[in-house]
Amino acid sequence: VQSYTVYNHMLLPASFKGIEEDSRHLKNNVQLWDVSGERQVQIHGPDAAKLTQLITCRDLSEAKDYLCYYAPIIDDKGKIINDPLIMKVGEKTWWLSIADTDVLLYAKGIAIGMNLDVEITEPNVNILAVQGPKSFELMSRVFKDIDKLKFFNFKRFDFQNHKFLIARSGWSKQGGFEIYVDHDEIGVQLYDQLLSDGKDLGARPGCPNLIERIESGLLSYGNDMDMNDTPLECGLDAFVSFNPDIEYLGKEVLKKQQQQGVSRSLVGIMMDLKEISVTQYLPILNGQNKIGTLRSACYSPDFGKCLGIAMVDKAHQTLDQDLKLQINGIEISAKMTNLPFTK
Amino acid sequence: VQSYTVYNHMLLPASFKGIEEDSRHLKNNVQLWDVSGERQVQIHGPDAAKLTQLITCRDLSEAKDYLCYYAPIIDDKGKIINDPLIMKVGEKTWWLSIADTDVLLYAKGIAIGMNLDVEITEPNVNILAVQGPKSFELMSRVFKDIDKLKFFNFKRFDFQNHKFLIARSGWSKQGGFEIYVDHDEIGVQLYDQLLSDGKDLGARPGCPNLIERIESGLLSYGNDMDMNDTPLECGLDAFVSFNPDIEYLGKEVLKKQQQQGVSRSLVGIMMDLKEISVTQYLPILNGQNKIGTLRSACYSPDFGKCLGIAMVDKAHQTLDQDLKLQINGIEISAKMTNLPFTK
Repeated sequence: VQSYTVYNHMLLPASFKGIEEDSRHLKNNVQLWDVSGERQVQIHGPDAAKLTQLITCRDLSEAKDYLCYYAPIIDDKGKIINDPLIMKVGEKTWWLSIADTDVLLYAKGIAIGMNLDVEITEPNVNILAVQGPKSFELMSRVFKDIDKLKFFNFKRFDFQNHKFLIARSGWSKQGGFEIYVDHDEIGVQLYDQLLSDGKDLGARPGCPNLIERIESGLLSYGNDMDMNDTPLECGLDAFVSFNPDIEYLGKEVLKKQQQQGVSRSLVGIMMDLKEISVTQYLPILNGQNKIGTLRSACYSPDFGKCLGIAMVDKAHQTLDQDLKLQINGIEISAKMTNLPFTK
Repeated sequence: VQSYTVYNHMLLPASFKGIEEDSRHLKNNVQLWDVSGERQVQIHGPDAAKLTQLITCRDLSEAKDYLCYYAPIIDDKGKIINDPLIMKVGEKTWWLSIADTDVLLYAKGIAIGMNLDVEITEPNVNILAVQGPKSFELMSRVFKDIDKLKFFNFKRFDFQNHKFLIARSGWSKQGGFEIYVDHDEIGVQLYDQLLSDGKDLGARPGCPNLIERIESGLLSYGNDMDMNDTPLECGLDAFVSFNPDIEYLGKEVLKKQQQQGVSRSLVGIMMDLKEISVTQYLPILNGQNKIGTLRSACYSPDFGKCLGIAMVDKAHQTLDQDLKLQINGIEISAKMTNLPFTK
């Protein structure tokens, strides 16, 4: 591993052979990702369903115990606190597979404040993601009937007499699985088995890839969106429910925003540049107007230019037109586009 | 800078010329620390005092607007969530200068759950710490009357017509100050000024130092203590109030624990070793008994041995006696001692 970041107080690999080579490999082969930093927040108890629904704008009232729900966690102002995958793993038990903020503390605060009957813990679960087009072939060699698992479904599968919860999910658009490893020793054996069984498929260690995820329009909490943004501003409308039968924090604020329309939203920016590095929000100017901020970007070899994700005022969104934008003091020929990017 | 960690989602330097040389330098000179990762959680509004008191076991009912309060943040079970310095910086405004967990989310959760009238934000404040025995001389050259500032007091001092909040505090026992930089440009000028004015005092960049802080018995949240420990188990009794007039979470649990006595507590461990690296809690055995866990440790050149901080069962605490302990599978000649360490 060449570089790391820290995610939920744990190390998370960021590259192995450089992000360009990693990206090429991911699109053609299969990679094993140690994404233990994607911690689980377990909410358990009589009020678990109530609390879980209260903190997300996604409708979980019909949640099935075999489906994964991408669900923004929000506060009472409708702002995003995190964007986990939520799974109902037991009658009174929910897992939130979180991005990089202490959702456990937020949920605990709400539970204490409202006197809810729940236990909130971080179980010893470490996700091993198997990603890439050849992940299906590889996983079939190790887990019986895994080919029947549908997208965003989860189920327990046997390995060495241990039943691992496996979801068909993952933080790439190349297809794959996430294995919720809740047994350290058998987990290591599983890793070794996958690596060895996948030799002819080009299996190697990997990690979430900046290029692939931007090309695919996969949003990164803490980079593309933060605690000052609402799900509607981030294009997450599909995960915001106004079902009158459910109650969640910030619902009225979001309802009002939906009725009035958002004043800004995330868009793609294609830039005629060969390299870029974004480590903080960069102001974007169009002539004299500050129109928004560039939040993530990378050079994409497949597109032959730099791709970025930006929060831009609706009034200044001129999609698919040739523009001259000033970013970080440099004039750049660029185009705004919808997300995900298309060639 | 040679190595970094990530603290509250920001980079925090961990060493400059190696931790041994950094430690020696810190004890004899003056260092400038960029500890921006020590974020501020600002609680503001009519219910700010109520909320701040609710989440800490320290009595803040008489809090002065010129004193810093080291105050464990706890949950309803009396477990530690964080251990910030708390300052009342305005009539209805409190700052919590936090260790590495998202206290903002916890406070927000409680406030939402209890419907308290507060705004909770992370202001753009970045701490510049000036630490070491020569920090007094250096700071006196830059700030008028700073020599009158007493330990754990804070006050605003003028630099370039900007009033910086400065506390006589810092995460070392070598003496020093923390400057709450709330103006980026003037802050950089201040840094340059301190570095240049401190040339003859050996001023150089530095950072919290593993050796110095363990020798001094300064506890590190996330290393020596976590969400499963109470302040009483961590020897923080002086910061736990049972004043009947104040109300805080977990008070009854802590009262009961105080009456019954803790069953385990943090102690120092001196080990006849020349090097050690602790990256997770290591079980400690005395013969057949598992007596606790080693949580932090380093080699101390001044002591000529390794020093560690460990959570050990009261029943197995045999202070100041020669012991043979098994740590990480190795038998070590060791002594348990009170904290801080004494030669």
